[in-house]
Amino acid sequence: MTAGSGWISDALREHEHADRPEVPGGRTELPVTDREQQVLDRIDRARRRRPRVREERITMSHGAGGKATQTLIEAVFLDAFRNPLLEPLEDAALFSVAGPRVALTTDSYVVSPLFFPGGNIGDLAVNGTVNDLSVSGATPLYLTAGFILEEGFPVADLTRVVSSMQEAAVAAGVSIVTGDTKVVQRGKADGCYINTAGVGVLLGDISLSVACAQPGDAIIVSGPIGDHGITIMLARGELDIEADIISDTAPLNGLVASLLAAVPGVRAMRDATRGGVATILNEIAKAADVGVLASEDDIPVRDEVRGASELLGIDPMYVACEGRLVAVVPGESAEAAVRAMRGHPLGAGAAVIGEVVADQPGIVRLKTAFGGTRIVDLLVGDPLPRIC
Amino acid sequence: MTAGSGWISDALREHEHADRPEVPGGRTELPVTDREQQVLDRIDRARRRRPRVREERITMSHGAGGKATQTLIEAVFLDAFRNPLLEPLEDAALFSVAGPRVALTTDSYVVSPLFFPGGNIGDLAVNGTVNDLSVSGATPLYLTAGFILEEGFPVADLTRVVSSMQEAAVAAGVSIVTGDTKVVQRGKADGCYINTAGVGVLLGDISLSVACAQPGDAIIVSGPIGDHGITIMLARGELDIEADIISDTAPLNGLVASLLAAVPGVRAMRDATRGGVATILNEIAKAADVGVLASEDDIPVRDEVRGASELLGIDPMYVACEGRLVAVVPGESAEAAVRAMRGHPLGAGAAVIGEVVADQPGIVRLKTAFGGTRIVDLLVGDPLPRIC
Repeated sequence: MTAGSGWISDALREHEHADRPEVPGGRTELPVTDREQQVLDRIDRARRRRPRVREERITMSHGAGGKATQTLIEAVFLDAFRNPLLEPLEDAALFSVAGPRVALTTDSYVVSPLFFPGGNIGDLAVNGTVNDLSVSGATPLYLTAGFILEEGFPVADLTRVVSSMQEAAVAAGVSIVTGDTKVVQRGKADGCYINTAGVGVLLGDISLSVACAQPGDAIIVSGPIGDHGITIMLARGELDIEADIISDTAPLNGLVASLLAAVPGVRAMRDATRGGVATILNEIAKAADVGVLASEDDIPVRDEVRGASELLGIDPMYVACEGRLVAVVPGESAEAAVRAMRGHPLGAGAAVIGEVVADQPGIVRLKTAFGGTRIVDLLVGDPLPRIC
Repeated sequence: MTAGSGWISDALREHEHADRPEVPGGRTELPVTDREQQVLDRIDRARRRRPRVREERITMSHGAGGKATQTLIEAVFLDAFRNPLLEPLEDAALFSVAGPRVALTTDSYVVSPLFFPGGNIGDLAVNGTVNDLSVSGATPLYLTAGFILEEGFPVADLTRVVSSMQEAAVAAGVSIVTGDTKVVQRGKADGCYINTAGVGVLLGDISLSVACAQPGDAIIVSGPIGDHGITIMLARGELDIEADIISDTAPLNGLVASLLAAVPGVRAMRDATRGGVATILNEIAKAADVGVLASEDDIPVRDEVRGASELLGIDPMYVACEGRLVAVVPGESAEAAVRAMRGHPLGAGAAVIGEVVADQPGIVRLKTAFGGTRIVDLLVGDPLPRIC
């Protein structure tokens, strides 16, 4: 008997006769080799089996780093995200980057409800981070995915979220290459929170920043605003409002590529998420120390969104989008920019909404529909919490 | 009067006499220019003021993307993490990488309690991600920080966590270059969760993987195991055990550099967090399809940790460390590796704990202190939830 086989009978004997004193002759009393084979066969069969999560709901053990965690990772995450960079399941994903400059971003997603018309927290978590990379002029390449799951969260919901993430990743042309899963006790989360970080490359010497805005520049929005925020608000069902609105969550890298190809001189882009378009206009005014003059009439807002906003007493200018961007371009390029954006499905509703001016630096003014002018400041308070 | 100044009196009149119909001559009735100056001066003063969070506790508005969010970011995060890459506060941080190959990793931190002997969730979140990069052979460079804050979380605690993150980042030689903050309602989190993603560069053609382990290789641990897990368990105060143990949370990039310099042939490294050393040994056995034979006597465990583990009925082999790594090196390099590690403060307790063998592939065996041998399998269940 080899040193490598005796241990099994030892282990078995210790296990089965733990209470008894060691019997020197004990080992020989057992048909050792058969027993060994049984044990090894059982282990092999278990290993060959395709991992499956048997539990219907997430338990603390799914986050403990042991068997349950491994099964969850292999059966749910690896199965959906499967790609050569993720598969080694090492502590970090390794890849080479094509360009000299890298863009890095992160966002946590805590949207409530997790599932809403037009999407769920999964595609939101992929698109949101893809968009943060895109508007900084980077080509999104790789994402990380960090899950914080609440004990009791349905595994079926997790699987649904994860497959939405994968579909969104494929649509955006990115890979989810590394991840992490934590489980917290019931009542210490809200089902599922997701953090995604994203890495992209900047090709050429593109350099975008809202601080580059100059008087004479045009400000363009890529489509109707507020769809996502209002959709979430209504999806909560706290209000008895019926409206045919769905989230605009979408990856903007394609639209951005079209715009940059047509107008290399783009000064800056921002995706209008939390705080909406009003916040971006203020960021432009503050960062570039310029004035911003926007025209309410020119800002595209769907009738359903406008209607719901009025009922909710919210200004659509502050409502989040998840598939819209605001671009600052030189005045003379405005037309070309709008044309380029309208040529892309996600920019069909693109429009010039305002201009950068020299006077009143740091201040955003809005020409109201009824002829007046008002200051549009940063949002105060929280009209729409947990929309992303 | 310029078009750029009339708007203020308009705004003021609309604001103050909203109920009245517009009086054509109204504007001339007011000492316009003085009023303008007052407004602009007030705005300027507000802008020049150093941002300060006035609230004692986090409110939903700190996550709404408006003024409160901006103040929180500037007063707490930017003030602590301040660095050239973070300061633009764009949607993504841009940097160039020195090497051709990049490492990317992520981890969410949900440790409970947030503050414990030897550290808090802040330095844990930095060290943990620095270590995941380090053990994959990368030089950690940049981190992201995603915060999920519970409504009502004390701002003072957040400030304390954030300054620990910054101290840990400085100690590890990394920069926190981009971040995100979300706020969820009371009861939807546990004070503060942090996700960090990390980017590092691999210099040269180093390629580490537990799949590279070969029979004859030595398995080394960098110091006494289980300190962090037991510290957290005791810090919860659920058990009436007094023990003089502190978390081993520390950045391992320095230790890894010393090891790689002395032993370029290192096959693989893992930091022993969730699941402890036992889990890593199983990962080695499974990934490389080899047997692992470890010796209980050789595994360094502090007496306090061993004692507490016995009282808790936990095997230290499964208890998490946050500043220890397991290295697989060719047998002939074992001595050099241990010497190199002992030369570093964080590797003072380094020891060979086992070897890679050909027989019983996929199985981890432990020679127990009392002469027997037992199978060390993956952890089942969750003896220590939320330790990291």
